[in-house]
Amino acid sequence: MSSSPQSPAAVTVIGLGPMGRALAGAFVAAGVRTTVWNRTPGRDRELVERGATGAASAAEAVAASPLTVVSLVNYDASDAVLRQDAVTAALKGRTLVNLSADTPERSRDTGRWAAEHGIAYLDGAVMTPTPTIGTPQAVFLHSGPEELYREHRPVLDALGGTHTHLGEDVGRAAAYDIALLDIFWTSMAGYVHALAVAGAEGVSPRELAPFAQGIGAILPPLFQELAEDVEGGGFSGEGNPLTSAVSSMAHIVHASEAHGIDAGVMRAAEGLARRTVGLGHGADGFSRIAEVLARR
Amino acid sequence: MSSSPQSPAAVTVIGLGPMGRALAGAFVAAGVRTTVWNRTPGRDRELVERGATGAASAAEAVAASPLTVVSLVNYDASDAVLRQDAVTAALKGRTLVNLSADTPERSRDTGRWAAEHGIAYLDGAVMTPTPTIGTPQAVFLHSGPEELYREHRPVLDALGGTHTHLGEDVGRAAAYDIALLDIFWTSMAGYVHALAVAGAEGVSPRELAPFAQGIGAILPPLFQELAEDVEGGGFSGEGNPLTSAVSSMAHIVHASEAHGIDAGVMRAAEGLARRTVGLGHGADGFSRIAEVLARR
Ligand SMILES: NC(=O)c1ccc[n+]([C@@H]2O[C@H](COP(=O)([O-])OP(=O)(O)OC[C@H]3O[C@@H](n4cnc5c(N)ncnc54)[C@H](OP(=O)(O)O)[C@@H]3O)[C@@H](O)[C@H]2O)c1
Ligand SMILES: NC(=O)c1ccc[n+]([C@@H]2O[C@H](COP(=O)([O-])OP(=O)(O)OC[C@H]3O[C@@H](n4cnc5c(N)ncnc54)[C@H](OP(=O)(O)O)[C@@H]3O)[C@@H](O)[C@H]2O)c1
Repeated sequence: MSSSPQSPAAVTVIGLGPMGRALAGAFVAAGVRTTVWNRTPGRDRELVERGATGAASAAEAVAASPLTVVSLVNYDASDAVLRQDAVTAALKGRTLVNLSADTPERSRDTGRWAAEHGIAYLDGAVMTPTPTIGTPQAVFLHSGPEELYREHRPVLDALGGTHTHLGEDVGRAAAYDIALLDIFWTSMAGYVHALAVAGAEGVSPRELAPFAQGIGAILPPLFQELAEDVEGGGFSGEGNPLTSAVSSMAHIVHASEAHGIDAGVMRAAEGLARRTVGLGHGADGFSRIAEVLARR
Repeated sequence: MSSSPQSPAAVTVIGLGPMGRALAGAFVAAGVRTTVWNRTPGRDRELVERGATGAASAAEAVAASPLTVVSLVNYDASDAVLRQDAVTAALKGRTLVNLSADTPERSRDTGRWAAEHGIAYLDGAVMTPTPTIGTPQAVFLHSGPEELYREHRPVLDALGGTHTHLGEDVGRAAAYDIALLDIFWTSMAGYVHALAVAGAEGVSPRELAPFAQGIGAILPPLFQELAEDVEGGGFSGEGNPLTSAVSSMAHIVHASEAHGIDAGVMRAAEGLARRTVGLGHGADGFSRIAEVLARR
């Protein structure tokens, strides 16, 4: 195994945006021999000062290590870097772990490309912000051949946190990633909108924040409850019927627009909830919307 | 004070939906003499069995206690109940606490109506689900005359949890409520959508739920960070620029629609983020959207 004491672990990191720098930094901090490359030069300065090796090209970078970790903005970017002849050739017989975010379909496409070119391939996703990398708070998802995952797990462990292998379907980590980022970005959109509406009402961000954190704290148990509801097909609205939710959503749209603040996100959410009520589910819980969305 | 040992505390609860029943149940459990009324009869059965008194009319109900707590779907409903001559007359010289959710403007309007009719008025909001009522997890917001709040606080404490008086402006609790429900319902909309997309990818609600709870756990510290960003005008995108966010949001729309799942909420959120990028803020953080939304 590449992480045995005889052959010290070595890794290449392609992509030095905020996340790539955090990943490479964690490898360096863990004593892994780290080679880095980024399209725009100069982003490796601090890492090189800390002991990483800056490669002159992507092909040189991937040739330096048995394992390459990619963290780019998306798979258009990772295709642009990896699907150049010199890079593809250098990757042959080595392992590639792509931690960039994109759709499951792009991950599966990359899996096919890797297989065609003799590249061992794992797909993955990072579920936590950059400051968590290298700490117990980091969360990583992986999918692809389990044996390959086991082989490289010791090096990946240098990134800290929790690593979960979700299955052999190479697109599975991206499927989780998409769903989890759906929750994340939608919640963030709700929060920045709430800050704007609160501001228009004379409530400052710092005044709202502790209560917003309270709302954040009630979500996890509700997420569990709704998952059971959807899985069991119960959709109970006993504690909070959809009719009550749409009324509440309408107030938000009204209060927002009364201040001239665009309420498009809440309008779309309210529309979805009203569509569900209109289908005869007004007495059901919010979980019913998941079932209605999934109808063919 | 009405809660002194000499005159045992007494309260009327108007509205016996899930929340009204939880509130009345907590009063009964705390030994407060509780009178209840609901538009549709029969909803008081279990409460009456536990010791509450069912009133024959709303006017009779409010006449039974110095303090009336209202929990109805919205202020159209509370106006329909309270602004009947007999009820308004019975409320004269008593205290009304309206915990129904609506806009700040409706709360202020009710404050004016109450003042005109010699009714002492506090507005409020319940920020946590029904199972929290009567437990330390409950969160209540109040606004209106501080002295009045102090007078009734001992009875309201029977509801458990944390009570915060936000100021004398009677609409202030509703302003917080609207902003906090904005976060809540938007997040919930993101979550049910995520369940649908995950399902289409063969990931079950129970498989997704633990990771969804992980996303829920990273939100509160980010909420604090974004509040500081907006308050300080920093809008730093150092750790996660808007350009990265819009790319991620586009993947979600794409993956959702590829499965025939409506992505209207994320489309609206992505549009907002792209509008902000288009205004030249691509290198800023997500917090910049709050500032753009608030622009006149
Ligand atoms: N930041 C976070 O908190 C976070 C959390 C979880 C997951 N992620 C994911 O991690 C990945 C990396 O994110 P990030 O935060 O580091 O920033 P990012 O803005 O998403 O990605 C920046 C990286 O992508 C490169 N890039 C963009 N277009 C390219 C192209 N056409 N060819 C080659 N390289 C290209 C940039 O190179 P240049 O420097 O040359 O522009 C830079 O290395 C993303 O998929 C993101 O969703 C990030
Ligand atoms: N449930 C929760 O988890 C929760 C959490 C926080 C805050 N809240 C807030 O608490 C309030 C009450 O919510 P809820 O969950 O109990 O259910 P709800 O469905 O919002 O409200 C139901 C109550 O409103 C009454 N009502 C509706 N229209 C009426 C009208 N025109 N005239 C008279 N009464 C009318 C219903 O009477 P009938 O029985 O006659 O229909 C019932 O008493 C809402 O403002 C809600 O936003 C609820």
